[in-house]
Amino acid sequence: MSTVPEFRPADPGFEARVRDSFGRQPAMRLIGATLGLVAPGLCEVDLPHNPQITQQHGLIHGGVVGMIADSAGGYAAYSLFPADSTVMTVEYKLNLMAPADGERLLARSRVTRHGRTLTICSLDVFAYKADREIHCATGLATMICLVGRPDAPRSGAPR
Amino acid sequence: MSTVPEFRPADPGFEARVRDSFGRQPAMRLIGATLGLVAPGLCEVDLPHNPQITQQHGLIHGGVVGMIADSAGGYAAYSLFPADSTVMTVEYKLNLMAPADGERLLARSRVTRHGRTLTICSLDVFAYKADREIHCATGLATMICLVGRPDAPRSGAPR
Amino acid sequence: MSTVPEFRPADPGFEARVRDSFGRQPAMRLIGATLGLVAPGLCEVDLPHNPQITQQHGLIHGGVVGMIADSAGGYAAYSLFPADSTVMTVEYKLNLMAPADGERLLARSRVTRHGRTLTICSLDVFAYKADREIHCATGLATMICLVGRPDAPRSGAPR
Amino acid sequence: MSTVPEFRPADPGFEARVRDSFGRQPAMRLIGATLGLVAPGLCEVDLPHNPQITQQHGLIHGGVVGMIADSAGGYAAYSLFPADSTVMTVEYKLNLMAPADGERLLARSRVTRHGRTLTICSLDVFAYKADREIHCATGLATMICLVGRPDAPRSGAPR
Repeated sequence: MSTVPEFRPADPGFEARVRDSFGRQPAMRLIGATLGLVAPGLCEVDLPHNPQITQQHGLIHGGVVGMIADSAGGYAAYSLFPADSTVMTVEYKLNLMAPADGERLLARSRVTRHGRTLTICSLDVFAYKADREIHCATGLATMICLVGRPDAPRSGAPR
Repeated sequence: MSTVPEFRPADPGFEARVRDSFGRQPAMRLIGATLGLVAPGLCEVDLPHNPQITQQHGLIHGGVVGMIADSAGGYAAYSLFPADSTVMTVEYKLNLMAPADGERLLARSRVTRHGRTLTICSLDVFAYKADREIHCATGLATMICLVGRPDAPRSGAPR
Repeated sequence: MSTVPEFRPADPGFEARVRDSFGRQPAMRLIGATLGLVAPGLCEVDLPHNPQITQQHGLIHGGVVGMIADSAGGYAAYSLFPADSTVMTVEYKLNLMAPADGERLLARSRVTRHGRTLTICSLDVFAYKADREIHCATGLATMICLVGRPDAPRSGAPR
Repeated sequence: MSTVPEFRPADPGFEARVRDSFGRQPAMRLIGATLGLVAPGLCEVDLPHNPQITQQHGLIHGGVVGMIADSAGGYAAYSLFPADSTVMTVEYKLNLMAPADGERLLARSRVTRHGRTLTICSLDVFAYKADREIHCATGLATMICLVGRPDAPRSGAPR
């Protein structure tokens, strides 16, 4: 029960594929998020605090917490998908348990169940403040695997 | 059942209070979101498309869709709160039903139930593309009212 | 936005198919739930109060509220599915906004978006007590359409 | 991150209080659920298969899976609450990851964050079939602590 399932990726080049896809997400660049650990069924996203991503109390915006959680979830799932596929979020749910108050946030997602069409991921976000870890959000996401669809805009031109 | 509940705001100055609070959210400015309609138990947030807020397919990032939905929900609830209070998101859940593909997005939230401590809001996001409206996301949020807490950082200094 | 989408069912015999499937759910019989209105993309489930379905405060158990909400959602979706298919719940989320205190409950689900694989439904539960209607729960569900799978146990024998 | 938080219960008599409250839930008796392990911030609910709690495929109904998950969550939270309080479910979300196909189900909930007003719990349901464990559902719940309210109907009479 508390053991984490072990996954064998369908695509041995999964890590390069995940890193390439993340690198093509302008929204992650805009908020300053970077990809951390990528392993089969696991993905971490790092986010240093910066005043531009805060809400009215000076804390990191709950929606931004959701952004990195969703992104970690999408790539945890995508790490297990075949090479010629893309990933879309079907739905996610997030409990914001404590203020996102820290020098940096870490979103970590693990695949709980990997199916051919749907993959379920746990989402957790931690804040780090002066060496203290605060578990600030926990959630769940459902991701869908779209096989035979390119993981890129149809035209190479920016839209 | 399909009738929308009508709310009487506790604070007659609710609209100015909501607009002031939204204006102090750097994260909303970062993504280019602006406040639309604000009414008792109702709030809309507008977001024009721009390449910086996209994901790897050139569509608006699902996490950004979540940001404006969460923000609309927080302010729909906050419109009904007393003057000396602040609002925090307890949790939200969002179904991304269609790609957020359009020239602009509109997030609309309505309060479904207003309680003394907890307020429940529906969240809906619509994309507008060449005069066509696409209902691209639907969700629910639970907001908490914190009475006697300022809706601002403890210190005036930026953090 | 507030207009309800109109659906054309793929199977003209949808209502008989829904009623037949509901009739084969012993769990609904156990709690005393019956099927109400069935229309394309819409389903209602009725539940009279009875002491066997209550929790420790004498109110209808939140899990039972979830049961009829989930069931209404599954059949709202199933009404739009092709004849040779079955429906499974992918996930559901429910906010219990007020105690389920009444002589009877009504769960109503409407399809918000009908896709080939996934269908999203809104869930609402109302309690009726001395002619007063209380909106006691609201939620969302994601349903999956499994084509070519019988809507029945593989063997006719009870399991 | 993967360490489970350790909780010190506010009420040393928490286990008897939880078992007494569960025993006063007719809905749990109706479906045949019994309380398993109860520890600070942890609760398990057992459910043997029986034909009365199934859906149209002969599997345990998804709503019944939700019932035991919600119940486990409520009592995991309640184990940490003060003696003169009661617990209500604010909301729960459940992913049904695999058919609830087995001789028995076990719902396990752990408190992820315990706050004065709100407590967040993880929910997991496992099916056991011929010595094989299947992780069939995972979810999250938000519970509210109502202090000074009796955990019983206002009148002793059955309602």
